[in-house]
Amino acid sequence: MGYTIGIAGASGYAGGELVRLVDAHPALDLGYLAAHSRVGDPLGLVHPQLSGGERVMAPLDPDAMSHLDLVFLALPHGASADPAMALLDRGVRVVDLGSDFRLDTPERYCEAYGSDHPFPDQLGAWPFGVPELFGGDLAGADRVAVPGCYPTSVALALAPLLASGVVEPAGIVVSSMSGVSGAGRSVRADLLFGAVAESVTAYGVLTHRHRPEMERALEAACGENVEVTFTPHLVPMQRGLLSTCHAKSTGAGDAAAVLQAAYAGSPFVRVVPEPPHTSWVVGSNRCFLSAHADDRTGSVIVVSAIDNLLKGAAGQAVQCANVMLGLPGAEGLPTEGWMP
Amino acid sequence: MGYTIGIAGASGYAGGELVRLVDAHPALDLGYLAAHSRVGDPLGLVHPQLSGGERVMAPLDPDAMSHLDLVFLALPHGASADPAMALLDRGVRVVDLGSDFRLDTPERYCEAYGSDHPFPDQLGAWPFGVPELFGGDLAGADRVAVPGCYPTSVALALAPLLASGVVEPAGIVVSSMSGVSGAGRSVRADLLFGAVAESVTAYGVLTHRHRPEMERALEAACGENVEVTFTPHLVPMQRGLLSTCHAKSTGAGDAAAVLQAAYAGSPFVRVVPEPPHTSWVVGSNRCFLSAHADDRTGSVIVVSAIDNLLKGAAGQAVQCANVMLGLPGAEGLPTEGWMP
Amino acid sequence: MGYTIGIAGASGYAGGELVRLVDAHPALDLGYLAAHSRVGDPLGLVHPQLSGGERVMAPLDPDAMSHLDLVFLALPHGASADPAMALLDRGVRVVDLGSDFRLDTPERYCEAYGSDHPFPDQLGAWPFGVPELFGGDLAGADRVAVPGCYPTSVALALAPLLASGVVEPAGIVVSSMSGVSGAGRSVRADLLFGAVAESVTAYGVLTHRHRPEMERALEAACGENVEVTFTPHLVPMQRGLLSTCHAKSTGAGDAAAVLQAAYAGSPFVRVVPEPPHTSWVVGSNRCFLSAHADDRTGSVIVVSAIDNLLKGAAGQAVQCANVMLGLPGAEGLPTEGWMP
Amino acid sequence: MGYTIGIAGASGYAGGELVRLVDAHPALDLGYLAAHSRVGDPLGLVHPQLSGGERVMAPLDPDAMSHLDLVFLALPHGASADPAMALLDRGVRVVDLGSDFRLDTPERYCEAYGSDHPFPDQLGAWPFGVPELFGGDLAGADRVAVPGCYPTSVALALAPLLASGVVEPAGIVVSSMSGVSGAGRSVRADLLFGAVAESVTAYGVLTHRHRPEMERALEAACGENVEVTFTPHLVPMQRGLLSTCHAKSTGAGDAAAVLQAAYAGSPFVRVVPEPPHTSWVVGSNRCFLSAHADDRTGSVIVVSAIDNLLKGAAGQAVQCANVMLGLPGAEGLPTEGWMP
Repeated sequence: MGYTIGIAGASGYAGGELVRLVDAHPALDLGYLAAHSRVGDPLGLVHPQLSGGERVMAPLDPDAMSHLDLVFLALPHGASADPAMALLDRGVRVVDLGSDFRLDTPERYCEAYGSDHPFPDQLGAWPFGVPELFGGDLAGADRVAVPGCYPTSVALALAPLLASGVVEPAGIVVSSMSGVSGAGRSVRADLLFGAVAESVTAYGVLTHRHRPEMERALEAACGENVEVTFTPHLVPMQRGLLSTCHAKSTGAGDAAAVLQAAYAGSPFVRVVPEPPHTSWVVGSNRCFLSAHADDRTGSVIVVSAIDNLLKGAAGQAVQCANVMLGLPGAEGLPTEGWMP
Repeated sequence: MGYTIGIAGASGYAGGELVRLVDAHPALDLGYLAAHSRVGDPLGLVHPQLSGGERVMAPLDPDAMSHLDLVFLALPHGASADPAMALLDRGVRVVDLGSDFRLDTPERYCEAYGSDHPFPDQLGAWPFGVPELFGGDLAGADRVAVPGCYPTSVALALAPLLASGVVEPAGIVVSSMSGVSGAGRSVRADLLFGAVAESVTAYGVLTHRHRPEMERALEAACGENVEVTFTPHLVPMQRGLLSTCHAKSTGAGDAAAVLQAAYAGSPFVRVVPEPPHTSWVVGSNRCFLSAHADDRTGSVIVVSAIDNLLKGAAGQAVQCANVMLGLPGAEGLPTEGWMP
Repeated sequence: MGYTIGIAGASGYAGGELVRLVDAHPALDLGYLAAHSRVGDPLGLVHPQLSGGERVMAPLDPDAMSHLDLVFLALPHGASADPAMALLDRGVRVVDLGSDFRLDTPERYCEAYGSDHPFPDQLGAWPFGVPELFGGDLAGADRVAVPGCYPTSVALALAPLLASGVVEPAGIVVSSMSGVSGAGRSVRADLLFGAVAESVTAYGVLTHRHRPEMERALEAACGENVEVTFTPHLVPMQRGLLSTCHAKSTGAGDAAAVLQAAYAGSPFVRVVPEPPHTSWVVGSNRCFLSAHADDRTGSVIVVSAIDNLLKGAAGQAVQCANVMLGLPGAEGLPTEGWMP
Repeated sequence: MGYTIGIAGASGYAGGELVRLVDAHPALDLGYLAAHSRVGDPLGLVHPQLSGGERVMAPLDPDAMSHLDLVFLALPHGASADPAMALLDRGVRVVDLGSDFRLDTPERYCEAYGSDHPFPDQLGAWPFGVPELFGGDLAGADRVAVPGCYPTSVALALAPLLASGVVEPAGIVVSSMSGVSGAGRSVRADLLFGAVAESVTAYGVLTHRHRPEMERALEAACGENVEVTFTPHLVPMQRGLLSTCHAKSTGAGDAAAVLQAAYAGSPFVRVVPEPPHTSWVVGSNRCFLSAHADDRTGSVIVVSAIDNLLKGAAGQAVQCANVMLGLPGAEGLPTEGWMP
């Protein structure tokens, strides 16, 4: 007997991956598909790559969804808060893949988003959905905020190093590269093939909203103020995300060994000796890490690779749901990539 | 009346671009094409995209090339030293696109390449071929070492800031992303379409040989020791290179204004307000820079975009030759990109 | 003393290439830039890859353009007819890159576009702008219709074979593959990187509007009814177009030899023994052809490669203008490709 | 209790997919991994995207493999014949993904491969492994030849139309487009990213070895001589294959309806109204078909899309194994694609 699941925002890239994962999950049954702009459309028109295409998109209606055990919200920023609270009021667990509940204080929220949060007392009340780091907070929770793709890659890379005192919390520099699916399925001039192919650029320099999430996650790991300079880049590929993270060494330990120990029991995080390629993880829920210590400059570099739509979004959301529901954490999640 | 030019290594990507540029140059005549592995092959077989395909590849023979005014060497590391010295002995100017003569001291060379230089007294005697920064050294020179693509992008981004004291020489962190043509035309498993497409990776972490070149160039600009942590990444595109450069601010000035002033007279360097896309420069000899100051962390970020085969190799080489020969620096060089 | 040129539709891909070509042309001066949706924007914002970015987009105003010697119209279907006639009335030559004047009869126009032409007497009065095939019609003309990219590739491949009776006019089958720039710079969901990359599809099966153009051009070459089955495909690349053309052999001659003879004097068309790659021609105004005779099935296959934005649009338009103005046909046009 | 499976040629692209599929299959256990050139290497080095990476590559040794229930051979042309016969002699079922046993007569083999077959009596004795078309031959068979990717796409598109007399067996013209993984994991200059990206070409014009396979398969479907003109093209993507198939209509029926009826019970073949994109099937074992009738020219066009490594290789091989072993045909095979 499985849990009955709803997905809101099913027409986007992460939404499509949620459908695929839930359909394949032995303990989850897909009971509700909502997609604001595509209500009435069959799934096969919205996601021709999926089977079961005759299922039809419904509106996001908390009353109609009150029988569900858990709902995944894969909505644009600002669109999750109201339905999330309405679903929780109806006794439905919520896993939010959006950014509405990821930050821990009203101040940090206001800094990141330039406005007040509609439910300020909820900030800090949503566990941060990286099961490898915050699994204890997730077990039995009725609400979880799945972090953004960039913060996931960076938290997995640096949290154990900060927690064990191997690197300094100040002066962290992160350069990340993501495929276009990280920007969602929006129809925008800057996401055209003609604009993206054969080009790379930095964007959101100094202002990207994932930076406060990173700092929140890393502060939770080490109990100290953490300062990150974060620059994301758009590279011409569909999926995959690489973060190259620089931190000052404290000289207190071996970074690779600390990571190896921290993730020894994790089915999804692997520490490898050479920098990973994103193609090694695309299609799977895995994160590959490599750590490199530089005696010359006293710094540590950790390279972190994930599939932005799986470990960076839909896969991690299902992993969180597994923990919330008391299922094995890896249940129904792929560990095999698709390369080539 | 033009100068008669030779190109050695004409079968590679940079070699092909040199042929294209020299053929289009009003003051240069292409008089000799050498390509070790393709001797006897017509140009049209080696570079089907070029016209004049009936010209045939000759061996790299300094005696046969002694009538030339200038030779471009586009050879693998270690292959330039002997022919360069032989050509100079015969009174032929040399522009070396390889790495043999880029470093300034035997110690730095040995650190970078793990062996002694065959002509150690030449180290430091070859001007570093970035005309915008070291143009005075190039005028009338008979030998110039064209820097690597990564060092070019970083030197243009940071040298004026270091020279004017706007940023600190220690603690520089550079993340760069390059298309595959930067790795040359080698037939290697890691350069297959199946390995490169839809993937990104870091490589040469802490060990890439372009790092000492960057430090040399930046030290020449500011007269102090410079320390760079450099991580290059391979992204799935043919051409284009982006460097995101982080430095500590000294608080002594406005980085964007300093760059604007430094390149006010340069036809090839543009300072733009937003981070450039590599597609804006691919096909041209231009470098686009954007500077971003972060009060929160006291750092300055400069994003630098070039075409790795033009401003990062063949274009810059022709620009150096122009200065060496007393021609206008921009003669025969493209300022228009190819996007889309 | 150059001719003063205007470009309407300068914000699109073909428009940008026209700016680049006219700027580089020794006998043409760019005197007017019109772009409906971008009036007031500087060129550098619209086409950051181009230099001279301070030039500003003006409205398409025939009165303001009456001093020009020639105007290139690079407008969507249906938008050329009125300004073209207005410019001609004011004594300005017109080269139309759009589809409004390409067909030769009102019947064929109505079949292709499902509506009547606003100036039916103009149909057939505009020379078909492939200088290699219809150069005689172009010399001194004041109006020329530049064909679409697909018809150009097919006309160059098959017209000489039909004219010489080497292949049959009935039963021609053409499969073409184009990069996305052929679809213009529209912001459409099906042109997103996420939709185009790592995928190929057929489109416009049996209904593509370029089919009647092909038949018109081929009928003009042979004086007989020509019947083409045409299927275009979208492939994940920015530029480049390949047509694989099948025709029944008549047994009357050697296709490769006929093509070789037909284009012996042409600087832009090359007949090669092996099927060309589009990367051999992208960046140039060239067309590469290979012909293959199959005794087993009695058919001839011709593979034709062009750059859809150059020989398939802007390059051919400038070539037409050269002929109209009495300039050398190849003046200012590139014969070198950009590969890699 | 599952069947114990061996894979030979496990280091290639199809081999890697076989490992992934067999690992995920509920009734198959992977018992032997052979890879000639990588003997001794752990799977994780050869296929970093797969889990269970500690498994080590063994030699292809029929004696050591005699305990297996079935072996997949994913070897280059000519390498399958000997081990296949040796395995059969030891009572091991063989599914050959190579081309050694696909043709039905010594004459056809000699025409395609230019040499005699070492076991001529085997030609015609291996069922042609397209379960949707030849499932009856596969049930209980101990040997099956899985067709090439192109023939699979074409046989699924045209066999029912020929069988039902809707199209003529003569004058078939097929243009196909494939991603690079169809060429295997060879380290070749023409498969470099720099050669493949941003380019398309035809290859093997009139000589491709998959053409006789197509004719064999289609003749088996209709009992008449079939004549195909086949031109494959390489497009810049990793996976996916599209065939646009032209045939003369007999006027005897509706092509789309015939296909719909033929595949009504098939979980893997879908008939869709619009031309499919390869991204709709990549990652799945599905084939999408669209049929288009042209009254004007009396022809029928069928567009067929598959994942060349799944329905075109490893997926179809597992599907064949399912039928051979009496398992449900779709067991363990994906019906969901990976787009984006």
